Amino acid sequence: MSKVSIPKGTRDFGPTEMTRRNYLFQVIRELYELYGYAPIETPAMETMETLMGKYGEEGDRLIFKILNSGDFLKKATADELLNRDLVPLTSKLSEKALRYDLTVPFARFVVQHHHELAFPFKRYQIQPVWRADRPQKGRYREFYQCDADVIGSPSLLNELELIRIIQGVFTKLGLADVEIKLNNRKVLAGLAESLGASDFLIDLTTAMDKLDKIGLDKVNEELVNRGLPTTAIEGLQPLLTFSGSRSEKLNLLDTMLADSEIGKAGVEELNYLFQLTDQFGLSQVSLDLTLARGLNYYTGAIIEVAHPDFPSSICGGGRYDDLTGVFGMKGLSGVGISFGADRIYDLLLAKGLFPDSIETVTQVLFINFSDEAIPTYLKLAEEMRVNGISAEVYPDQAKLKKQMKYANDKKISHVVLIGEEEIQAGKATLKQMKTGNQEVVLQSNLIDQIK
Amino acid sequence: MSKVSIPKGTRDFGPTEMTRRNYLFQVIRELYELYGYAPIETPAMETMETLMGKYGEEGDRLIFKILNSGDFLKKATADELLNRDLVPLTSKLSEKALRYDLTVPFARFVVQHHHELAFPFKRYQIQPVWRADRPQKGRYREFYQCDADVIGSPSLLNELELIRIIQGVFTKLGLADVEIKLNNRKVLAGLAESLGASDFLIDLTTAMDKLDKIGLDKVNEELVNRGLPTTAIEGLQPLLTFSGSRSEKLNLLDTMLADSEIGKAGVEELNYLFQLTDQFGLSQVSLDLTLARGLNYYTGAIIEVAHPDFPSSICGGGRYDDLTGVFGMKGLSGVGISFGADRIYDLLLAKGLFPDSIETVTQVLFINFSDEAIPTYLKLAEEMRVNGISAEVYPDQAKLKKQMKYANDKKISHVVLIGEEEIQAGKATLKQMKTGNQEVVLQSNLIDQIK
Repeated sequence: MSKVSIPKGTRDFGPTEMTRRNYLFQVIRELYELYGYAPIETPAMETMETLMGKYGEEGDRLIFKILNSGDFLKKATADELLNRDLVPLTSKLSEKALRYDLTVPFARFVVQHHHELAFPFKRYQIQPVWRADRPQKGRYREFYQCDADVIGSPSLLNELELIRIIQGVFTKLGLADVEIKLNNRKVLAGLAESLGASDFLIDLTTAMDKLDKIGLDKVNEELVNRGLPTTAIEGLQPLLTFSGSRSEKLNLLDTMLADSEIGKAGVEELNYLFQLTDQFGLSQVSLDLTLARGLNYYTGAIIEVAHPDFPSSICGGGRYDDLTGVFGMKGLSGVGISFGADRIYDLLLAKGLFPDSIETVTQVLFINFSDEAIPTYLKLAEEMRVNGISAEVYPDQAKLKKQMKYANDKKISHVVLIGEEEIQAGKATLKQMKTGNQEVVLQSNLIDQIK
Repeated sequence: MSKVSIPKGTRDFGPTEMTRRNYLFQVIRELYELYGYAPIETPAMETMETLMGKYGEEGDRLIFKILNSGDFLKKATADELLNRDLVPLTSKLSEKALRYDLTVPFARFVVQHHHELAFPFKRYQIQPVWRADRPQKGRYREFYQCDADVIGSPSLLNELELIRIIQGVFTKLGLADVEIKLNNRKVLAGLAESLGASDFLIDLTTAMDKLDKIGLDKVNEELVNRGLPTTAIEGLQPLLTFSGSRSEKLNLLDTMLADSEIGKAGVEELNYLFQLTDQFGLSQVSLDLTLARGLNYYTGAIIEVAHPDFPSSICGGGRYDDLTGVFGMKGLSGVGISFGADRIYDLLLAKGLFPDSIETVTQVLFINFSDEAIPTYLKLAEEMRVNGISAEVYPDQAKLKKQMKYANDKKISHVVLIGEEEIQAGKATLKQMKTGNQEVVLQSNLIDQIK
């Protein structure tokens, strides 16, 4: 048999993984819809113009490009080909690429369809994205993102809503012990300002974002390497090392940001948001002064979700004031979150939190003993389906052992055995696969017995 | 504002289209699962070796190839580049491609994972595929396929089951007036044999398959052009022009195929299958002697579904005896069907058959009058969600007219208005958007009123 394989970093999902993944997506989908987020989908391919330049140089490299159909060398000059000028050739050989995330296609969608949309526009989107990253444990070249965003409303009620959705999803999944960490980019901007390091905001947030992973010394080292003034690094230390209650943290910010308008605005937003989360008993929410999040487009609240049994964040998001600006549509504020489906899947699996009930597609298998009994099997199976019970008739008259193995492998919960005797008597033997118990019942009572 | 667009032949799906599409997929998914088909998913990308050469030359051309990451010219020689040798260059510039259908990836999946699968393996798969076809009305470069197959069982009970699923799906969708047309490739092979044209089986089926579209004269012309012996074309005419009852058709086949073993086996299969469909009152099933289906891998039963109000088939399938053979795994017989989601969508839309109930994501909108009332809105909205009612609080204190327009645009069914007076009295004004009726109710009665 020839060796077959799939591209590295991609995955097949068999029935067991699929039913688990569908369960996870369904929980997320239900919460999104309960809060009025409507589904959209965008094409797997976007034009190169839409995607390129939106994720930095590294991102541009990691975008999968589609080779043009037909004569893909048509636009390439002989010189470019001989010199192997990869950058100009890339754009001449391909005009389409696979989406790298759901955020940029969403911004493109809003700009393209804004006349048809009701604003504030609340949408969710659960689709795969593709990245030519080096595959490693937990990092794939094809993976699903599960995003929700509301665009066109500056109100902090949206942040509150997204936090409630996060809590709702994790509670439903049996992971109520998550920590929902909040911070605000305005606070970070004010901090840079107060420290006389406004030009270093991105350096500051990029380095601070690694605190959990690499520790204080390495963060300070990185800040030095990134050229931050020594006074600024020193001034930052109280915040990086602070431990205290939420109100003590807010007091610290009040002091540190006394002279920064943007910083004070950030603290005010934090205060209002915590007032709301307190009011609704959202006890998992905490203030994390060192939370920065890597993405540069955030401008207000930032959110990240951690679980004690998992090394990296399992959900994140924040507010961005100008996502559609890059496509020429200014002044639309938005806020969004994204669940890390693969990480949450791994966590649920490790903790045994997938419900048993989802493991079974087929509830009942009819063992196939004889041609004469087939009409009976088919009739009874169809009655079950009409009653919402998933049922199969084994299609071949294989050995009983083989048919029972099939039921076992497929985690079918009940097996019905009807041989010649049972046919005559209008009866059936019903076997519960989990316990092994079996009993003889009237065929007309089968459905009640199974329910 | 800059002009943004998506690649031609691709589509964005907004909330209205998405809820309709989800409804359609859900109906198909439910029927598949009731009959014990389990979901799988395969990656969007397959290796070039998996895909190339499986769909003919034309197919190879229409497969979207992914440009290799990094130095994509690495393996290309200067000569190949200067001579612009597209065929060798294609395989050197790209080692991955987007799947073209779900059948070949499924065969690859079965071969790769056969040790983990319970046979007969029944799977369904609902995923997009990509084809670099010229886009035109109803033909897209990205579209979903909805396939179910059972592999590893030769029993005709599988064909019966798939026919019942087809009937179940269309009945549920309100399209019970479909015609489910059956034929058998063995009958066609026997026909070619009896006509002394066995070498022309593919020419025969390809031409016959167009009878509905191009008419008898053009089919005969094509048969001549394809080099079929005149005697064979003449011998075929009784079948192409025959009209009569099913048993008359079967009698005709008995006569025409009297000397062909394979032809008689095909007739026997048809007889058994019709016996079963009669037994279960599947009255939409008919025998279509001219049904051939284009795909060459079919070897037994072939199925196609037509609707009087739609010009082309909306579902099809058949039995293939050696799908996995191309990947080196011989002797696995399978049978499958595929629903044409886009065509069925168009038909449902044209006939107004999408249920009204699916048009609404959000059931209740709370109008936002004042900061003071926000805790009340939030509390009541949350109570609704706990009761499974999708609810939104308008996040900004916009003008009432704007908020009502939002409810209208989003097809929200109920609006709740709570101003200062209502707060004091613990009451709310509940407005039904469809009728315009409104009444004042106790806040504690809101949920009952809406339900």
